Amino acid sequence: MIRTIGVTYDNEVELNESIDEVDFSRYRWFWTDFDQPTDHELQHLAYTFQFHPLAIEDCIHRLQRPKLDYYDDHTFFVTHIVREEEMEIIKEELDFFVGDNFVVTFHNLPCTEVAQVWNRLLAYRNLEKWNPFYVFYEVLDKIVDNYFPLLYKIEDSLDRIEDNTQNKSMDHLMDELFDTRYMLLSLRQTINPMRDLLYRMLNSHHLNEVMERREYFADIYDHLIKLSDMVTANREMTSDVRDSYLSLNSHQTNNVMKVLTIITSIFAPLTFIVGIYGMNFEYIPELGWQYGYFLTLGFMAVIAVVMFLWFRRLGWFK
Amino acid sequence: MIRTIGVTYDNEVELNESIDEVDFSRYRWFWTDFDQPTDHELQHLAYTFQFHPLAIEDCIHRLQRPKLDYYDDHTFFVTHIVREEEMEIIKEELDFFVGDNFVVTFHNLPCTEVAQVWNRLLAYRNLEKWNPFYVFYEVLDKIVDNYFPLLYKIEDSLDRIEDNTQNKSMDHLMDELFDTRYMLLSLRQTINPMRDLLYRMLNSHHLNEVMERREYFADIYDHLIKLSDMVTANREMTSDVRDSYLSLNSHQTNNVMKVLTIITSIFAPLTFIVGIYGMNFEYIPELGWQYGYFLTLGFMAVIAVVMFLWFRRLGWFK
Amino acid sequence: MIRTIGVTYDNEVELNESIDEVDFSRYRWFWTDFDQPTDHELQHLAYTFQFHPLAIEDCIHRLQRPKLDYYDDHTFFVTHIVREEEMEIIKEELDFFVGDNFVVTFHNLPCTEVAQVWNRLLAYRNLEKWNPFYVFYEVLDKIVDNYFPLLYKIEDSLDRIEDNTQNKSMDHLMDELFDTRYMLLSLRQTINPMRDLLYRMLNSHHLNEVMERREYFADIYDHLIKLSDMVTANREMTSDVRDSYLSLNSHQTNNVMKVLTIITSIFAPLTFIVGIYGMNFEYIPELGWQYGYFLTLGFMAVIAVVMFLWFRRLGWFK
Amino acid sequence: MIRTIGVTYDNEVELNESIDEVDFSRYRWFWTDFDQPTDHELQHLAYTFQFHPLAIEDCIHRLQRPKLDYYDDHTFFVTHIVREEEMEIIKEELDFFVGDNFVVTFHNLPCTEVAQVWNRLLAYRNLEKWNPFYVFYEVLDKIVDNYFPLLYKIEDSLDRIEDNTQNKSMDHLMDELFDTRYMLLSLRQTINPMRDLLYRMLNSHHLNEVMERREYFADIYDHLIKLSDMVTANREMTSDVRDSYLSLNSHQTNNVMKVLTIITSIFAPLTFIVGIYGMNFEYIPELGWQYGYFLTLGFMAVIAVVMFLWFRRLGWFK
Amino acid sequence: MIRTIGVTYDNEVELNESIDEVDFSRYRWFWTDFDQPTDHELQHLAYTFQFHPLAIEDCIHRLQRPKLDYYDDHTFFVTHIVREEEMEIIKEELDFFVGDNFVVTFHNLPCTEVAQVWNRLLAYRNLEKWNPFYVFYEVLDKIVDNYFPLLYKIEDSLDRIEDNTQNKSMDHLMDELFDTRYMLLSLRQTINPMRDLLYRMLNSHHLNEVMERREYFADIYDHLIKLSDMVTANREMTSDVRDSYLSLNSHQTNNVMKVLTIITSIFAPLTFIVGIYGMNFEYIPELGWQYGYFLTLGFMAVIAVVMFLWFRRLGWFK
Ligand SMILES: [Mg+2]
Ligand SMILES: [Mg+2]
Ligand SMILES: [Mg+2]
Ligand SMILES: [Mg+2]
Ligand SMILES: [Mg+2]
Ligand SMILES: [Mg+2]
Ligand SMILES: [Mg+2]
Ligand SMILES: [Mg+2]
Ligand SMILES: [Mg+2]
Ligand SMILES: [Mg+2]
Ligand SMILES: [Mg+2]
Ligand SMILES: [Mg+2]
Ligand SMILES: [Mg+2]
Ligand SMILES: [Mg+2]
Ligand SMILES: [Mg+2]
Ligand SMILES: [Mg+2]
Ligand SMILES: [Mg+2]
Ligand SMILES: [Mg+2]
Ligand SMILES: [Mg+2]
Ligand SMILES: [Mg+2]
Ligand SMILES: [Mg+2]
Ligand SMILES: [Mg+2]
Ligand SMILES: [Mg+2]
Ligand SMILES: [Mg+2]
Ligand SMILES: [Mg+2]
Ligand SMILES: [Mg+2]
Ligand SMILES: [Mg+2]
Ligand SMILES: [Mg+2]
Ligand SMILES: [Mg+2]
Ligand SMILES: [Mg+2]
Ligand SMILES: [Mg+2]
Repeated sequence: MIRTIGVTYDNEVELNESIDEVDFSRYRWFWTDFDQPTDHELQHLAYTFQFHPLAIEDCIHRLQRPKLDYYDDHTFFVTHIVREEEMEIIKEELDFFVGDNFVVTFHNLPCTEVAQVWNRLLAYRNLEKWNPFYVFYEVLDKIVDNYFPLLYKIEDSLDRIEDNTQNKSMDHLMDELFDTRYMLLSLRQTINPMRDLLYRMLNSHHLNEVMERREYFADIYDHLIKLSDMVTANREMTSDVRDSYLSLNSHQTNNVMKVLTIITSIFAPLTFIVGIYGMNFEYIPELGWQYGYFLTLGFMAVIAVVMFLWFRRLGWFK
Repeated sequence: MIRTIGVTYDNEVELNESIDEVDFSRYRWFWTDFDQPTDHELQHLAYTFQFHPLAIEDCIHRLQRPKLDYYDDHTFFVTHIVREEEMEIIKEELDFFVGDNFVVTFHNLPCTEVAQVWNRLLAYRNLEKWNPFYVFYEVLDKIVDNYFPLLYKIEDSLDRIEDNTQNKSMDHLMDELFDTRYMLLSLRQTINPMRDLLYRMLNSHHLNEVMERREYFADIYDHLIKLSDMVTANREMTSDVRDSYLSLNSHQTNNVMKVLTIITSIFAPLTFIVGIYGMNFEYIPELGWQYGYFLTLGFMAVIAVVMFLWFRRLGWFK
Repeated sequence: MIRTIGVTYDNEVELNESIDEVDFSRYRWFWTDFDQPTDHELQHLAYTFQFHPLAIEDCIHRLQRPKLDYYDDHTFFVTHIVREEEMEIIKEELDFFVGDNFVVTFHNLPCTEVAQVWNRLLAYRNLEKWNPFYVFYEVLDKIVDNYFPLLYKIEDSLDRIEDNTQNKSMDHLMDELFDTRYMLLSLRQTINPMRDLLYRMLNSHHLNEVMERREYFADIYDHLIKLSDMVTANREMTSDVRDSYLSLNSHQTNNVMKVLTIITSIFAPLTFIVGIYGMNFEYIPELGWQYGYFLTLGFMAVIAVVMFLWFRRLGWFK
Repeated sequence: MIRTIGVTYDNEVELNESIDEVDFSRYRWFWTDFDQPTDHELQHLAYTFQFHPLAIEDCIHRLQRPKLDYYDDHTFFVTHIVREEEMEIIKEELDFFVGDNFVVTFHNLPCTEVAQVWNRLLAYRNLEKWNPFYVFYEVLDKIVDNYFPLLYKIEDSLDRIEDNTQNKSMDHLMDELFDTRYMLLSLRQTINPMRDLLYRMLNSHHLNEVMERREYFADIYDHLIKLSDMVTANREMTSDVRDSYLSLNSHQTNNVMKVLTIITSIFAPLTFIVGIYGMNFEYIPELGWQYGYFLTLGFMAVIAVVMFLWFRRLGWFK
Repeated sequence: MIRTIGVTYDNEVELNESIDEVDFSRYRWFWTDFDQPTDHELQHLAYTFQFHPLAIEDCIHRLQRPKLDYYDDHTFFVTHIVREEEMEIIKEELDFFVGDNFVVTFHNLPCTEVAQVWNRLLAYRNLEKWNPFYVFYEVLDKIVDNYFPLLYKIEDSLDRIEDNTQNKSMDHLMDELFDTRYMLLSLRQTINPMRDLLYRMLNSHHLNEVMERREYFADIYDHLIKLSDMVTANREMTSDVRDSYLSLNSHQTNNVMKVLTIITSIFAPLTFIVGIYGMNFEYIPELGWQYGYFLTLGFMAVIAVVMFLWFRRLGWFK
């Protein structure tokens, strides 16, 4: 579906549902949205708008890295929209062609961020504030704002993993930790290039429009720096949780080993001794002694106590 | 609560408890403090002072990253005040709007750093030294000075963990170590942006006021570099402590295993032998030998000694 | 084999199978391909084309690092073609000498990327678009595009390792992980210098030809940045998989140890007790008691239950 | 104690033991040394020399980070003197105020580096080479030269730890390794800022005096780069030693476990079998067989051999 | 030994074996080689050539870091020659003083790289190509070329360690791995400063001579970048090998533990049961049962099978 909003020279808003019938010359500026275009509709990028073949190629290929390219009469932006589904990051590409009197958005999946701004523009009265770059700003601001809930969700999930408030098995926790790390890795691959994209915009001499609204794009840049910091800090947190768990585990193994060794060390000699007097040799003098049994019990008690004291001296009961 | 200190053209200090009654034109410069403002009082940011909507948005949202933004007639600063409570870092935001003849501070929680400077200014006689940027410097200096006790506390706690002077259990120590690492991570997210903020101030060409007192802000920058170094070094220390602990643990497990193996290896064959002569077969020739019992004891002694020597040759008793 | 395509001044394409018979003066520009040249054919680099000895040395030595060198009348490029064979990265060098009216390619192994462009040029009608730098762009684009399938294969293999969908033994998985890491390391040593090469091209003031087609080379640069990101992320993934596996393993060892210790701790005292009443002393009073056997059984049941409860209290059954 | 060496306009050296009696106007340049000054003597920094309050504050506070500050008529340097005592790094601060015709040194502990240069200056005949910056160079050169023995000592100690030439227990070695890492961390916090200080000096346009003797300060900078490299390499060495030790330990644990498992696996079934024929059932047919005992012995030998071969096939004896 | 080759104004080569008899004014340029000079011969650096005291100090001190220093009429270079002996890196320093009409080399050990160029120059006819900087280039090229065999040897040794083709014990392998890491660390401390030295040469405005032969020094720089990449990649490889080994080991320990636990868990209850019926109580009813023995055997078989099935359900046999 390709729809166009045109803003006439006397600031009227017009909505065109079909690209074929639009008379672009009537508009001071317009916004065309390629919403899940068919293969046939794709042709308009080249024939109607005459965009550069490389930019068109980037639209069609899935999931380019976020970036901006300067072309003769417009700037081309690739951005990522990010959602989470069952501990997996889903990314969609949203492309912008922004020129002096047009903005073209392109997306292969329904995009709420575009829809919200689209409807707001249609409903708006005072159109002086709006222009192609302002449309771009409004959508971009929504995209970046929508990264936050994801990171907050990851932080909450990390808190749950760390305290194991849900009393899950360790295998389960380690699995969740791994998935969390993977989500952070995946987010980083979107957030860092987005941040660099904004940085280039703010420090570029090509984009006069950005300069006029510098503080607005700087505000988005702020958000992206904060997001990037959060991703880094959360990845470090995940390794801390894992290392912490490993330390604890190794300490626990050690303790279990000590219990086993103490038990074995005490009972192995005792069992051997009772085995001796269980032998059936015809001549074992001790067997005939009157107090042989009690002496043996006493002797074994002494061994057990000595063993116990030895392990205590080794500090194994601490 | 919104209070204002005005400094008149003849250097008199006046305190206004209500924003509505202030006649700003009477003052050479003034300082307005938004101390935990109500929703209604928030309006003054936009209506009375006409600050930029993005700066106001940053005030209202909680815990922006420390930063500075240049606006037409003032500079906007976001800073963090940091406290510790039960091994957790608590952060509060303190915002500054600094212009030629005004400084506006904004905080949603009581703030001792602001209160101290506020009272000092009220009590001061010679006001020539003071101006809006000097107020900003004085509060900022206090904020950064207050980061140090926190880091010293962390260093002390790390010392205690490392030597385990309080004889805590390992689980406990590892838990404290994890919390310490988290506190350092959290501090880094405040200290590094604060350091970068000061760096930008010192190298900016927008802030003439800073240039005139360059050495004062450079002194704060020094502190922040030192703090940043301390955070880095302490994080490395924590991993060293943990790795050290892991090494020791693995070594100890090894030792415990050796004890267990030696005990088992000596007693398993002996217990087997006494078992043999405990069998009730009708015809076991050895049982009838006169010295069968003593020969068996001797044979077992030989086995025990051989085992012992073998383990010693393997170096297990070192 | 040294073949030459010449483009005459009236845009005719001519193919020369032998270098000795080419009349270079007849061509507006030409492309000579050194395809697995013999030692004798190598001489033409120095005698026919008079390239710089250092560039020729780089051709002859195997596998230089990707780079570009500016010489007086041409630019020399070293690039890598990469294939995978049985979990090993195979690299081949493809060198370019690009001048105003010539491009010379040099490779010691058959090279499909060169062959494809060669044949396309031969079949082409409209030759205005083509020139030496365009030949270079076309081959380079193919080379870099061919890096992607390799990385996708590695990503698939990592997915298989992580989920162990093929139910392989752990030794096998760790081995594959190691090989994957090695492949990524090896790829990084090609992709990062290739990326830097493109970066230098795009920011160089020597290459006017590149400037005229900047967006095309920038497109290749995009691909290389994405590849470099993928290599980094995949290497982090591999360490995550390994650390995850280590954590799990350590947790499992711990569990196995607990089972062993519980079994041993319950049966060691019981076996000792039955050993006591298996002794053959003439005077063991308990043996004559009427309910001695049942009392002993009961006593042992109590010990087993106490042990069990103790371990449960220690949380070993969680 | 505050002592002053004055160099008169006819190049005579004069020593003044009391600051109160010095007539600074008589000297072409002078050197005042604050050697462990009393609180009262501290006043001279502000009243006699009128240094900047921030520089004086840095003198008084203990252990600022090494740095340099430019003030109107002098440059202020903070440097560290480093000693080692029982595997711990002790740092002392030495501060310099260097102006056109004076150098002031400040230290709260006795300082041999200052004393050596002080005495050399007093003994010197030809004073043309000397000026305030030369005094600073001479002391700084000594300070940095004294960092080397410390690092050599650490390197020697690391060699000893690695080869364990002194046959210490593992706990001891790990403890020394931890202390060594801590010393390196502490050294890095002095050496890196010192290196940056020299770098700033060499690349500053404020210090004409340095420019005239550039090669001398560059020589100190060389030393500091080498020291910084050594610290980095030695820290990596320490992790290598520890990782190496961990690997070995884990391998050894594995071996001990194998011995234990082999012993247990062979004797557990044998002990069970002899237990069977130790039972006192009235009717156990095998007990009456003539060769029952020998058959049983033979059967057990077969089990032992089979077990042994099985473990050999598993590769546990390698 | 101090020998000098002089090139006269009519391009004749003259060899002087003694420094004292050389008439430097007769030569267009000359090359003096200090080959393992005596303390007495060292004086010529200061008296005959009047080099800067700091450069002379660097010659005399052993093993400075590779670097270059600009002095008034010459440039001073410190370089490292590297050999391997029994898994240890041996480094020697070779220093150059390069001026407009002279090159002075200085080394405290015999140096084949110098000898080769020395002899080539003596044997050369056409001397126009040669000048002091060309001598420096020729020796430097040889030095850097000789770094490669060392790294190839390390790579081969790493391959051998990884596959353990020589079937060495693990202790041995870990030891070799540690030595390899140490060699790489040591090489890095030579190669990286050498690389930076070349980078400075290529980007310096002091060295006109280098600019004229830029491509030659750039060729050496290429080699050093490749070497630096190789060192980095090989160090990562060594950690991969070690981590791989650790993973495998931990997995193996786990498996051994499982065998031990299965054996113990099956035989501990069985041995307890046979112990029960080995007791000598006068009244144990089961002992009199006709099929008591067979019932007991059957019961024990059931226990063994149940245990076996339980462990199989736990997945311990996978
Ligand atoms: Mg796309
Ligand atoms: Mg936003
Ligand atoms: Mg990335
Ligand atoms: Mg904002
Ligand atoms: Mg916003
Ligand atoms: Mg962070
Ligand atoms: Mg971490
Ligand atoms: Mg706020
Ligand atoms: Mg302060
Ligand atoms: Mg941060
Ligand atoms: Mg200070
Ligand atoms: Mg201060
Ligand atoms: Mg560390
Ligand atoms: Mg080649
Ligand atoms: Mg391509
Ligand atoms: Mg590399
Ligand atoms: Mg593209
Ligand atoms: Mg492409
Ligand atoms: Mg990772
Ligand atoms: Mg001080
Ligand atoms: Mg020195
Ligand atoms: Mg540091
Ligand atoms: Mg030196
Ligand atoms: Mg020196
Ligand atoms: Mg290391
Ligand atoms: Mg030397
Ligand atoms: Mg070479
Ligand atoms: Mg180094
Ligand atoms: Mg080369
Ligand atoms: Mg070469
Ligand atoms: Mg690695």
